[in-house]
Amino acid sequence: MANITKKVSWSSRADESAAAGEATPLLNGSEQPQHSRQDSLRGRPKEIPHNEKLLSLKYESLDYDNIENQLFLEEERRMSYMGFRCLEISRWVVCGLIGFLTGLIACFIDIVVEQLAGIKYQVVKENIEKFTEAGGLSISLILWAVLNFTFVMVGAIIVAFFEPIAAGSGIPQIKCYLNGVKIPRVVRLKTLVIKVCGVICSVVGGLAVGKEGPMIHSGAVVAAGVSQGRSTSLKRDFKIFEYFRRDTEKRDFVSAGAAAGVSAAFGAPVGGVLFSLEEGASFWNQMLTWRIFFASMISTFTLNFFLSIYHANPGDLSNPGLINFGRFEGDSVTYNLYEIPLFIAMGAIGGLLGALFNVLNYWLTIFRIRYVHRPCLQVMEAMLVAAVTATVSFTMIYFSNDCQPLGPESTEEYPLQLFCADGEYNSMATAFFNTPERSVRSLFHNQPGTYNPLTLGLFTLTYFFLACWTYGLAVSAGVFIPSLLIGAAWGRLCGILLASITSTSSVGAQHSSAIWADPGKYALIGAAAQLGGIVRMTLSLTVIMVEATGNVTYGLPIMLVLMTAKIVGDYFEEGLYDIHIKLQSVPFLHWEAPATSHWLTAREVMSSPVTCLNRIEKVGTIVDILSNTSTNHNGFPVVVQVPGSDEPAKLCGLILRSQLIVLLKHKVFVELARSRLTRRKLQLKDFRDAYPRFPPIQSIHVSQDERECMMELTEFMNPTPYTVPQETSLPRVFKLFRALGLRHLVVVDDENRVVGLVTRKDLARYHLGKHGLEELQLAQT
Amino acid sequence: MANITKKVSWSSRADESAAAGEATPLLNGSEQPQHSRQDSLRGRPKEIPHNEKLLSLKYESLDYDNIENQLFLEEERRMSYMGFRCLEISRWVVCGLIGFLTGLIACFIDIVVEQLAGIKYQVVKENIEKFTEAGGLSISLILWAVLNFTFVMVGAIIVAFFEPIAAGSGIPQIKCYLNGVKIPRVVRLKTLVIKVCGVICSVVGGLAVGKEGPMIHSGAVVAAGVSQGRSTSLKRDFKIFEYFRRDTEKRDFVSAGAAAGVSAAFGAPVGGVLFSLEEGASFWNQMLTWRIFFASMISTFTLNFFLSIYHANPGDLSNPGLINFGRFEGDSVTYNLYEIPLFIAMGAIGGLLGALFNVLNYWLTIFRIRYVHRPCLQVMEAMLVAAVTATVSFTMIYFSNDCQPLGPESTEEYPLQLFCADGEYNSMATAFFNTPERSVRSLFHNQPGTYNPLTLGLFTLTYFFLACWTYGLAVSAGVFIPSLLIGAAWGRLCGILLASITSTSSVGAQHSSAIWADPGKYALIGAAAQLGGIVRMTLSLTVIMVEATGNVTYGLPIMLVLMTAKIVGDYFEEGLYDIHIKLQSVPFLHWEAPATSHWLTAREVMSSPVTCLNRIEKVGTIVDILSNTSTNHNGFPVVVQVPGSDEPAKLCGLILRSQLIVLLKHKVFVELARSRLTRRKLQLKDFRDAYPRFPPIQSIHVSQDERECMMELTEFMNPTPYTVPQETSLPRVFKLFRALGLRHLVVVDDENRVVGLVTRKDLARYHLGKHGLEELQLAQT
Repeated sequence: MANITKKVSWSSRADESAAAGEATPLLNGSEQPQHSRQDSLRGRPKEIPHNEKLLSLKYESLDYDNIENQLFLEEERRMSYMGFRCLEISRWVVCGLIGFLTGLIACFIDIVVEQLAGIKYQVVKENIEKFTEAGGLSISLILWAVLNFTFVMVGAIIVAFFEPIAAGSGIPQIKCYLNGVKIPRVVRLKTLVIKVCGVICSVVGGLAVGKEGPMIHSGAVVAAGVSQGRSTSLKRDFKIFEYFRRDTEKRDFVSAGAAAGVSAAFGAPVGGVLFSLEEGASFWNQMLTWRIFFASMISTFTLNFFLSIYHANPGDLSNPGLINFGRFEGDSVTYNLYEIPLFIAMGAIGGLLGALFNVLNYWLTIFRIRYVHRPCLQVMEAMLVAAVTATVSFTMIYFSNDCQPLGPESTEEYPLQLFCADGEYNSMATAFFNTPERSVRSLFHNQPGTYNPLTLGLFTLTYFFLACWTYGLAVSAGVFIPSLLIGAAWGRLCGILLASITSTSSVGAQHSSAIWADPGKYALIGAAAQLGGIVRMTLSLTVIMVEATGNVTYGLPIMLVLMTAKIVGDYFEEGLYDIHIKLQSVPFLHWEAPATSHWLTAREVMSSPVTCLNRIEKVGTIVDILSNTSTNHNGFPVVVQVPGSDEPAKLCGLILRSQLIVLLKHKVFVELARSRLTRRKLQLKDFRDAYPRFPPIQSIHVSQDERECMMELTEFMNPTPYTVPQETSLPRVFKLFRALGLRHLVVVDDENRVVGLVTRKDLARYHLGKHGLEELQLAQT
Repeated sequence: MANITKKVSWSSRADESAAAGEATPLLNGSEQPQHSRQDSLRGRPKEIPHNEKLLSLKYESLDYDNIENQLFLEEERRMSYMGFRCLEISRWVVCGLIGFLTGLIACFIDIVVEQLAGIKYQVVKENIEKFTEAGGLSISLILWAVLNFTFVMVGAIIVAFFEPIAAGSGIPQIKCYLNGVKIPRVVRLKTLVIKVCGVICSVVGGLAVGKEGPMIHSGAVVAAGVSQGRSTSLKRDFKIFEYFRRDTEKRDFVSAGAAAGVSAAFGAPVGGVLFSLEEGASFWNQMLTWRIFFASMISTFTLNFFLSIYHANPGDLSNPGLINFGRFEGDSVTYNLYEIPLFIAMGAIGGLLGALFNVLNYWLTIFRIRYVHRPCLQVMEAMLVAAVTATVSFTMIYFSNDCQPLGPESTEEYPLQLFCADGEYNSMATAFFNTPERSVRSLFHNQPGTYNPLTLGLFTLTYFFLACWTYGLAVSAGVFIPSLLIGAAWGRLCGILLASITSTSSVGAQHSSAIWADPGKYALIGAAAQLGGIVRMTLSLTVIMVEATGNVTYGLPIMLVLMTAKIVGDYFEEGLYDIHIKLQSVPFLHWEAPATSHWLTAREVMSSPVTCLNRIEKVGTIVDILSNTSTNHNGFPVVVQVPGSDEPAKLCGLILRSQLIVLLKHKVFVELARSRLTRRKLQLKDFRDAYPRFPPIQSIHVSQDERECMMELTEFMNPTPYTVPQETSLPRVFKLFRALGLRHLVVVDDENRVVGLVTRKDLARYHLGKHGLEELQLAQT
């Protein structure tokens, strides 16, 4: 009843491993799942029912808390002040590298897309010109559709068959990662390669997508790779940055990478920093923020620099970002007090349209989860969308007769004449043939009168449904640019209508009409409203929009519009990314515990009983516990029993599955240590080398003799885990857990005995639904 | 040996209260101060030796952790979901109000300053014109000096005699407040009134000061007042926002107020948010940030709107902020790759000059602490500075002959002809007579050739020393504008020199020379470098500068310049605000524990033994503990002893001095409760009404009979205080303490017995000095 097949989930490999060894890691203390799993995994039925009131147990947590065991403390104590300075400098170097590489990737994507789109345009244009007079436009249609088809097919195949996690914008996945959920394979090199190729294919394939969202994912992958100083995929270890091989440091760098991605995408370094903080920060640290900002700046700068060379204007650094809203300058940027209510009304429209978009996409995603879960089906759907997109566009171009003069001041790079008179071009065709980025810019800046209201209306309608259908396909693509484009189209429409209303009603009002007459301003407001209504980001989106316009004057209206869009939209439906996160049943922790959860205490929330280990434990016991697939725990409280007394055992530390596995692998047994005195002592390096892909317990061979040995855990466990008493209220537990980015929180009684363990799923389970506090069920998928 | 007299410290009243009842609150567990206090308090010697390796115990902490006792939990549990929604809405309303009022105050200050400066200019100008020909300019000098004198005297008197904490910019105090240190009287209404009047007087008095810094303080006071729904000074309680009467909520609102202040001062709403976060955030919360941003936006908007009315251009909202850098548009804003090294070099110069400024100001401040500690001396010093400023300015004007044509495009509002030919004006005089804000703008935007290099050089030199002398005087004044002005002056000088070098060396390079020739760009970079070198803010300052220029193009160079200035400056000396915080011996917590402090554990850091209370405690014992002036504890662990057993007592809660005082005041004794059953149960409201100024223990009368009664603390104590084991390393303790904004952290052994208590001073004590980890001494002053 309660399974989502993994073929449409973010990561299909978890599926295979589960089928192979039933090794899906469970969090500690979760009870046995009540439903049987046989029907869902092997049989793979045609229709997979989906229940969204579930919380998946397949996701592990990242541990933002350092494991301060003796090894760690010894290393830290040995390190001199200069050592820490060097570390700090290498953090800066890594951030600079992250920014540089992210900028390079953005530059590569941009140039390849532009080249391929140029070729495609040339081919189609020549063909159209050949056939327009002869009346054989259907051949051009087929040519165009086939071209788009091919690109989209390649893009869909590499994503669906090689790396399903590279589908979509990647922003929900990065949100989860920064929130502290380990999404399998999300920051691997292979994902990056597929993502980059996929986004090029889908953008060139003419889908209603943008290349900005994927940049954020790309930046995060770059960061995760660079900061570790090695690539597990390429099996290369550069032996540098070994200190950074742990969740704490890696997550910080991934924040920087995501920020660099935003920064490259929108030319918005501050917006990038705020995005990372909004999504990822639990504890704000000034130096970290400053480093993130550095990475962002370097990324914009790199992109800017190389693009300036590409555009044969080297050294001019004034046009950052993949998408550039163009310059808003002079009189057109001013707005007046009486326009504020209009802006707010547009924000409300954006919120409504955004909610509609999200609801439609939600239904579509559920449909996809149920029926479209095989890679080949996914590829076919993507190709269908490509074909429909091409057909719809061509039909609209065919029947539109919105001809515009091709003046010398016209900035269109790809004008299409079609049935227009000489010296004119078809504006609908231009809107579809241009890259979406360029269309957005045209909507913002073209002279009043460039667009026919009917064209705009039809374009909005078509593009809205196309974009909605496209998001969630098995192609790498972002939703930012389509949203901006839809919004800019209806925003400009609003501007035109306002101008016509005021000019008919009050002919004398020259001054006011001059202000109303600038539809570009309304296009900008509409774009902000639509984007805000769909993604529901707050501060960071405001800053991104302001930075992309390059002018702070619009700060206030953009903020008001985004705020309205968010309030109106939230009334109906969550943001698009949150919907997708929820549909994946990810244990996502919000900022605060639900407001009405004060009546819950740690006692009710925690998982119990807890599997504890003794400070000196038998190897056999450890192997058995680790191999127990029904309770696949990841963290184990270590307890100590006063010898000879019958007092209950007290908590004395916490040890992780990953540490135990390294210990077993190196056979750190008490008896062996005695017999082989020369044996090298286990060092922190051994744990770092194994990070982050610790081998499964099945791959470690322990002989029957070794099972009788003992393991001394004192040196390796974290002797000071954070604890809370049983009576602690849920919001208090939540705050501690969230602020410190914990993975395990031990609940103790007033004698310091372990009574339970709180992990991410125990907290993410509670959420505010329509009928007050709701509790999600836990499911193993 | 170790006292700073309080007359020059931020708050002189602590002095009086200490003298009156020796009630200076001490933190729990601090050992007795070793030195006697008699000599310093009464005798007040002429020279007061000062030792900066001290940490004052007179500052209390704010408690960002909610006291989740039974009363609180009952209230939260009674509250419905709608109740929480209403609370959330009222938070937004409060933030809106904060923004609105802060904007109004900024508007008021701006208009009054402009009016008074206009009057002063008129009077002096008429006088000068009368005497320039006749040769009696000395009379004009005296007139001018007397005018300045009078204003500064009034400003200094109200500050020195009525509210010493209103002196300076208030930014160090707000930094401390947001960091979690309760600075006495810093957010009171009286402080606000004095601050506003004081800043008007000092700006009009012609001192080298700005009115921007004080806006941040003003915003914070407004926030603290509005959010509490009452004014203790005015003895008015509006019975609203009672829920917000606790440290947690108040501190959030004060963050919003500070952000609104920055936003009003610089027209930089995002910069304001980042300032608040940089200084105050421990735990970042999306909704809170969004609210802070709302307050900031409203503040800019209000200021903007009312100023547009004042400037008779109602409804034009395009010019935010008290200081406006003017529009950087068109070709002048572009910069090229080869200019980056120049910018970085200028950043280094800014860092050097900033460090010099800070060192000089540091010596000056120590001198002031030692010798200038009486209010009358402070007023005299302020008047001396006013006189010297006037004299120096006049001398420079007198001897300068830098005449500039008074063209139609000239934007000077206060041109002074002096000895120049008709149709010209004296540019030195203009620089001194203008408000500093206008001078900054002129330096950024005036045509190349407006300023003579010699004028600029002399102006930089003079203004540098004047500004340095002025900061720290007993007047309300900020250091932002003087820094910007100094930087803009030498930056413009750099620009002019570069242009002359390149024009002589390469005559043919027309294009390059055109770029070099824009000295306004270099003025901006210089201003950023100088300001960064002095205050050492990072991300927030970058964003403030970018927002004030209204153009994101300069983001990268400004960031690089600020980074360089900070690195170079930090090598020599701390930032100006940090110096002043350190000189006040405030227990300020930085972002992280010192890097090399892993060898310290909670056991070494904590204060012990700890005064504990029993769950049911005798009133007499409590009164005695609270009255003990030698160990003026503020938080008491509550322990429970198993009756009849001799096991040691276990920790079961934490109770604060303020709570005990309210309990004593309301005589919540077990015996009385039994005898008077109708007695009203003590509610959370009683604690809120007493917040934040709880009466001292001396004012509560407890009779001898009552001393024999018992008090039941269970209902009022926080039953789940955060605890750490003794072995926890200092960085780990620090992280918990800082991330959650704690006030007391209980250290327990493995039987859950109290062994120590960690408070702010225990953590702030350790810092990285020149010779590794240093430990500050604790002192009672």
